[in-house]
Amino acid sequence: MIKTKLTRLLDIRHPIISAPMASAAGGALAAAVSSAGGLGLIGGAYPDQQWIDQEFSAAANIPVGCGFITWNLTRAMNDNAHILTSVLDRKPKAIFLSFGDPSPYARQILQSGARFICQVQTLHHAKQAIDCGAEIIVAQGAEAGGHGRNRATMTLVPEVADHIASHAPDIVLCAAGGIADGRGLAASLMLGAEGVVIGSRLWASQEALVHPTMHAAALAATGDQTIRSTVMDVARNLDWPAGYTARVLQNAFTDKWHDNLEGLLADAESQSAAWTEAWQAGDVTTANTFVGEATGLIHDIAPAGEIIEAIVASAEKRLATYCP
Amino acid sequence: MIKTKLTRLLDIRHPIISAPMASAAGGALAAAVSSAGGLGLIGGAYPDQQWIDQEFSAAANIPVGCGFITWNLTRAMNDNAHILTSVLDRKPKAIFLSFGDPSPYARQILQSGARFICQVQTLHHAKQAIDCGAEIIVAQGAEAGGHGRNRATMTLVPEVADHIASHAPDIVLCAAGGIADGRGLAASLMLGAEGVVIGSRLWASQEALVHPTMHAAALAATGDQTIRSTVMDVARNLDWPAGYTARVLQNAFTDKWHDNLEGLLADAESQSAAWTEAWQAGDVTTANTFVGEATGLIHDIAPAGEIIEAIVASAEKRLATYCP
Repeated sequence: MIKTKLTRLLDIRHPIISAPMASAAGGALAAAVSSAGGLGLIGGAYPDQQWIDQEFSAAANIPVGCGFITWNLTRAMNDNAHILTSVLDRKPKAIFLSFGDPSPYARQILQSGARFICQVQTLHHAKQAIDCGAEIIVAQGAEAGGHGRNRATMTLVPEVADHIASHAPDIVLCAAGGIADGRGLAASLMLGAEGVVIGSRLWASQEALVHPTMHAAALAATGDQTIRSTVMDVARNLDWPAGYTARVLQNAFTDKWHDNLEGLLADAESQSAAWTEAWQAGDVTTANTFVGEATGLIHDIAPAGEIIEAIVASAEKRLATYCP
Repeated sequence: MIKTKLTRLLDIRHPIISAPMASAAGGALAAAVSSAGGLGLIGGAYPDQQWIDQEFSAAANIPVGCGFITWNLTRAMNDNAHILTSVLDRKPKAIFLSFGDPSPYARQILQSGARFICQVQTLHHAKQAIDCGAEIIVAQGAEAGGHGRNRATMTLVPEVADHIASHAPDIVLCAAGGIADGRGLAASLMLGAEGVVIGSRLWASQEALVHPTMHAAALAATGDQTIRSTVMDVARNLDWPAGYTARVLQNAFTDKWHDNLEGLLADAESQSAAWTEAWQAGDVTTANTFVGEATGLIHDIAPAGEIIEAIVASAEKRLATYCP
């Protein structure tokens, strides 16, 4: 058993949190991860009250948390000021914020009793998270699937660890980005993390809400075949702030538009309709599969609980390799 | 003592190779690294016969190796067909090739008795290195300083490790990119590497041939302040193949030109002269400091031997953290 500050703070068996992946991380996945000894998070990313309610119900009585895209939570609360309150009323084990300024929500989350997790992509944002009272900071590298920025897990984790050690030593640090097996968990612990947030490997689970053709595309791909781009956000009419890109499998759509953003914007309406239709149909030549570089380390779609157990068993073995 | 396949193959005390950094890695640095128990490499990057001769002389009788930028070695051999032979005649401990097809040089290197090291940036290039007989493969992530591509150390290392295990299990794998302290070495071993190639941290050594203002700029920077770009290659009239970028500290030059390559090309002659003059003068607002994301983990300019000893001692301590 790998015991860390994270397992003690959250009272969980394994130092693993599942990423609150938009549309893919529903209640079934979150519940399976928590049942296996980690902490599962529902992906409230582009917050839809009805979907979140449905997925919390799907998690039944298993303790799970919920994640938001911070800038989009801010936007959504203009229409529905109670969305965060309604989630907090469900007594989630944790609230996870990423991509934007978390400070407007810090007090309400901390007062609710939920653990307050801030995911950051730069040292600068880690300082912001410390300032607003984060209890857990997740340092996310650019190798991650979906949205992120440019820093790599390998350097961001130890740099944030050093900053936490000298400025806020009670904060628990986790690593995210590129971690899909026991090697990644063991490496993250060596870098100074006390746990990991796993996206792609749990996206590739039986409980994840993912089109089967996208699972198949990820299994067939190597890590060389992903790209960070903004063209999928243009196609989805999502107004992500500058500096954020999303990692996906390269396909005909990114081949055509990644280096021709002006062309895409000029034809936005028809391209957007085509992409959205392809997404619903699971047409992976047009719609993009949201998975990280770790896709090259993923070779099956397994039950989430088995994935967690395998990662931990493998990490324990790796960690013993260089013991005296 | 951390003993691995790499320490056994090269008969060295510590699983650490110094990167053959263009202009910075001369004979003094290579000799200091080898004397400290690693393997030091002279940076023959843009091969200049006179400079290489001078730096091998500076290394005196300490066993060191030499690295080349493969595509540039090919170019240089059009003018001076004997450059590789002249280096091999010095009985280097290893030849290190990166950035281009190594196959034209494989037989000559292997027959010379030097160890044949290929650095790769993708799984695809790792397969190419296996096919041409590499004895050591270095999987280099994009967090590295200087030239590289897009894959991250965190995923590239285990993916290449899996491929080697199933296709060429005698090859020894090293990790490069973002490794600047004992945490990075320990993490690399967990990912499946048998050693590491260290650039930035040894660039920040007393033996490296680096302008003092560039050392100072790196010490002052966080890892958030680097960028991968091609504008420095345009400024230096270097015709790097597509797909390669170099990581440097952001400055006024990258701020101005990174998103305006056409503008830079239109004014190439005068911008190139200004950049080159600034490089010679150590003016870091115009010339770029070649250092990786690990700059945020570097806090002093120390003797290379002390750096190696500190990395190994810290890695041993990290590796013991989770031992039963």
